[in-house]
Amino acid sequence: MIKEPLNIIKAGGAVVENEETLQTLLMQFSSIRGLKILVHGGGKTATALASRLGVETQMIDGRRITSAEMLKVVTMVYGGLVNKNLVARLQALGVNAIGLSGADMNLIMSVKRPVELVNFGYVGDVRYVNVKALVSLLEAGAVPVFAPLTHDKEGSMLNTNADTIASALAQALSPSYDVTLTYCSDIPGVLRNVEDPSSVIKTVTRADFDPLVADGTISKGMIPKLQNAFDAISAGVGRVVITSAASLSGGTTIKEVPESDD
Amino acid sequence: MIKEPLNIIKAGGAVVENEETLQTLLMQFSSIRGLKILVHGGGKTATALASRLGVETQMIDGRRITSAEMLKVVTMVYGGLVNKNLVARLQALGVNAIGLSGADMNLIMSVKRPVELVNFGYVGDVRYVNVKALVSLLEAGAVPVFAPLTHDKEGSMLNTNADTIASALAQALSPSYDVTLTYCSDIPGVLRNVEDPSSVIKTVTRADFDPLVADGTISKGMIPKLQNAFDAISAGVGRVVITSAASLSGGTTIKEVPESDD
Repeated sequence: MIKEPLNIIKAGGAVVENEETLQTLLMQFSSIRGLKILVHGGGKTATALASRLGVETQMIDGRRITSAEMLKVVTMVYGGLVNKNLVARLQALGVNAIGLSGADMNLIMSVKRPVELVNFGYVGDVRYVNVKALVSLLEAGAVPVFAPLTHDKEGSMLNTNADTIASALAQALSPSYDVTLTYCSDIPGVLRNVEDPSSVIKTVTRADFDPLVADGTISKGMIPKLQNAFDAISAGVGRVVITSAASLSGGTTIKEVPESDD
Repeated sequence: MIKEPLNIIKAGGAVVENEETLQTLLMQFSSIRGLKILVHGGGKTATALASRLGVETQMIDGRRITSAEMLKVVTMVYGGLVNKNLVARLQALGVNAIGLSGADMNLIMSVKRPVELVNFGYVGDVRYVNVKALVSLLEAGAVPVFAPLTHDKEGSMLNTNADTIASALAQALSPSYDVTLTYCSDIPGVLRNVEDPSSVIKTVTRADFDPLVADGTISKGMIPKLQNAFDAISAGVGRVVITSAASLSGGTTIKEVPESDD
């Protein structure tokens, strides 16, 4: 059976919180044909609102500690301000966007992260994706736009990393669709030379990974990014792309093995 | 053709912003069988957040003047905080809630109110309800929960009164469903004696209206409320109910003429 293609684009805060890159993203996203899903961030806006409200922002390893007050802030910013404005602007471009959190139609259920070394507060680890409801929305012609929020099915919203949501959606939908998961940030891809944004490596397979780490081409934050990409591929996702808003159809494609048409 | 019943419940800020009445509303709403839609307010929370952010709240005839800053506030509060928490709590009660604004799936399109005597700012007057998309959500088993927000289909969200949204939905869906539109506030219905909350008048028909106004039983804010109810009925809505969260299945029913089973 040939599966229908589905593009899942995760656009980080650096993309959606800057008017110029946001405009580029919206144009590029609206030009993608076929089934698609957008997952967005919005951390800077949340931090700025928290600060205006006197709510302290505390991050550990890039993850936000989410107190009860901070949960209100992220529910307002991610679920309201950023999400609804993205939906309104996509609608203006003719995209049949629908703004969603994990609570809506119980699309993404998570459990509050257990307290171990760190108490992350109201942060949810994904346990369940409601594939049936998502498929029905996609088949009705809707374009889901996900805020990085889930719920515990016990009445509370939970804060969940946007990368994690994108990956969970990609993995859950891969049995039904030929999924391409694209991580869109301000970097155009894996670079041969980090000083040269035009030196994008087009394809990284699992066999390429270790040598590229060994020679220092892949380093720092790009290592866990690629490890997550290979995890998604192991879980059945067709391919993962790392790119910027300006080159949504370009960037670095991470695959298990080279494809015959490469 | 016998049309399937559809309950549209509008719950004002006085209901959803008080934990006790909110809990009552959620229990009552979750016990309604069949198709249903919830439309909520959240004005006090918006005013409180605006105040903390130094954004001035200005009301004219009970309507909020919506500056660009205030639009951000209501998008956060109505579309994010209030909406997502209602959805999460309904999900915990087994209701397949989906939080929506008018922008989502272009469900409710409005036009920015023209500046006449007053410049209301980013306030939208409803022009279009996407019945097809709403029917598809209802038929998929979803329970729409509407924030009082619409969009102009040109990229901007707009602030729209929750009563107006509930009435627009009821009118647009009446050709497809047998609609009961319920306005749920802190008053149990039209009272024979305003001092006595147990003196609820069960039914008000159009023939009853003028005499009840003439003898002072219906006065002040209840007059426009009933006029709006009769407008909805003229536009094809089966019946309008005015009640409180505690007696969602009681209250005053406004109908064109008495029904045979009365």
